[in-house]
Amino acid sequence: MSENESIGHYNFVAEPFHVDFTGHLTMSVLGNHLLNCAGFHSTDRGFGIGYLNEVNYTWVLSRLAVELDEMPYQYEHFSIETWVENVYRLFTDRNFAILNKENKPIGYARSVWAMINLEIRKPADLLTLHGGEILNYVSDKKCPIEKPTRIKIDSSGPEIIYKVKYSDIDINGHVNSIKYIEHVLDLFPIEMYKEKRIKRFEVAYIAESYYSDTLSFYKQKINESEYNIEIKKVDGDVVCRSKVIFIN
Amino acid sequence: MSENESIGHYNFVAEPFHVDFTGHLTMSVLGNHLLNCAGFHSTDRGFGIGYLNEVNYTWVLSRLAVELDEMPYQYEHFSIETWVENVYRLFTDRNFAILNKENKPIGYARSVWAMINLEIRKPADLLTLHGGEILNYVSDKKCPIEKPTRIKIDSSGPEIIYKVKYSDIDINGHVNSIKYIEHVLDLFPIEMYKEKRIKRFEVAYIAESYYSDTLSFYKQKINESEYNIEIKKVDGDVVCRSKVIFIN
Repeated sequence: MSENESIGHYNFVAEPFHVDFTGHLTMSVLGNHLLNCAGFHSTDRGFGIGYLNEVNYTWVLSRLAVELDEMPYQYEHFSIETWVENVYRLFTDRNFAILNKENKPIGYARSVWAMINLEIRKPADLLTLHGGEILNYVSDKKCPIEKPTRIKIDSSGPEIIYKVKYSDIDINGHVNSIKYIEHVLDLFPIEMYKEKRIKRFEVAYIAESYYSDTLSFYKQKINESEYNIEIKKVDGDVVCRSKVIFIN
Repeated sequence: MSENESIGHYNFVAEPFHVDFTGHLTMSVLGNHLLNCAGFHSTDRGFGIGYLNEVNYTWVLSRLAVELDEMPYQYEHFSIETWVENVYRLFTDRNFAILNKENKPIGYARSVWAMINLEIRKPADLLTLHGGEILNYVSDKKCPIEKPTRIKIDSSGPEIIYKVKYSDIDINGHVNSIKYIEHVLDLFPIEMYKEKRIKRFEVAYIAESYYSDTLSFYKQKINESEYNIEIKKVDGDVVCRSKVIFIN
């Protein structure tokens, strides 16, 4: 398999309603583009969510880690490359490079996905998918950022309580993966984004949440630039964990 | 000026994180696409926000009304046409058609824009813009929906109180026009969207709101399918009014 066939390349522009007050693309919109690229890339190669749904399976995003030197500015063109790094029995690692308009990498991302059976909601064997054809697309392109880490939280009380709304819910009836990113970033005051920018963002999706669920957001300050976040349901079940590392 | 030059045509696909639990594009994402099309169309014809900013002016959206027979479904291709209907001294009317993948209109939208001077924040004379060149692009293409209406509210107390967050703020430091749409639609319980869909959506932007502003959302039920909404700051200043008409 040539690198051309294993690596997908997709073009974007930073739209005006997708940038924050600094004029840079928001992390949640970048996350949306990354997940769309994962969809384009897998669909073009026959293992997309459309095919999986037909045979009663679906892709589930487990982890996402993004690390950036800069964010595209309003109206700037940029592109995203994506490729499969590893395929294990129950997980696959998909990586991304974010390139500026001169095709120079300005950041990278790593994601971990499982394939689940839609009836029993349990992980399925990826090596049997399409007769293991996904393995043909594994690329050895380098992704020079740390893998998603194990996030632990030690926090006395919730930072905010949030009741899930109509606009949070996706076609599966769950809070959509992008909305968690938006809610996590809203835990920080705007002054933080005036002084610093996000160097690394991580999220681990642990359980689904639903319309009208009441979510508690816990935030632990590790140091001046690093925060761990945990989102829990009323019954204590953890929905999501996240880490945000800022840089001056 | 031929119709080809006066009407812009832009292609889209309903992305998975842009649809709601019914699988249809959300009104806020459609609004985002409409405003982007306004930007593409005006920029391509020399009166875009980039040129205006250079000469110390900017476009300000005053009103938007959208009426639809159907919303594009997840992964469906659709397109948006936009054209200028009228240019007055202080306002211009820009219309839109939303077309399904067979190029059949599934909805229309109307918008009203002012051009303001960035220093004095006052409306400027559109007929002097580029020597009145904008008039060359006026099209008589039909837009068979009612113009934006005057929305009045009679409500005893606020439905919700919302504190403006980081993710609400755009590059100008204001709550972005699309976020108001999202917050207005979140005033309705998900059951409403299970039983009905939005037939017509209107919003009038009256004043700017800023980070950490506390906004009160007032909702008046006109009948089973029609609601008026008003967003006010703590000091009573009206930020925005909206009307949502549902259909079974």
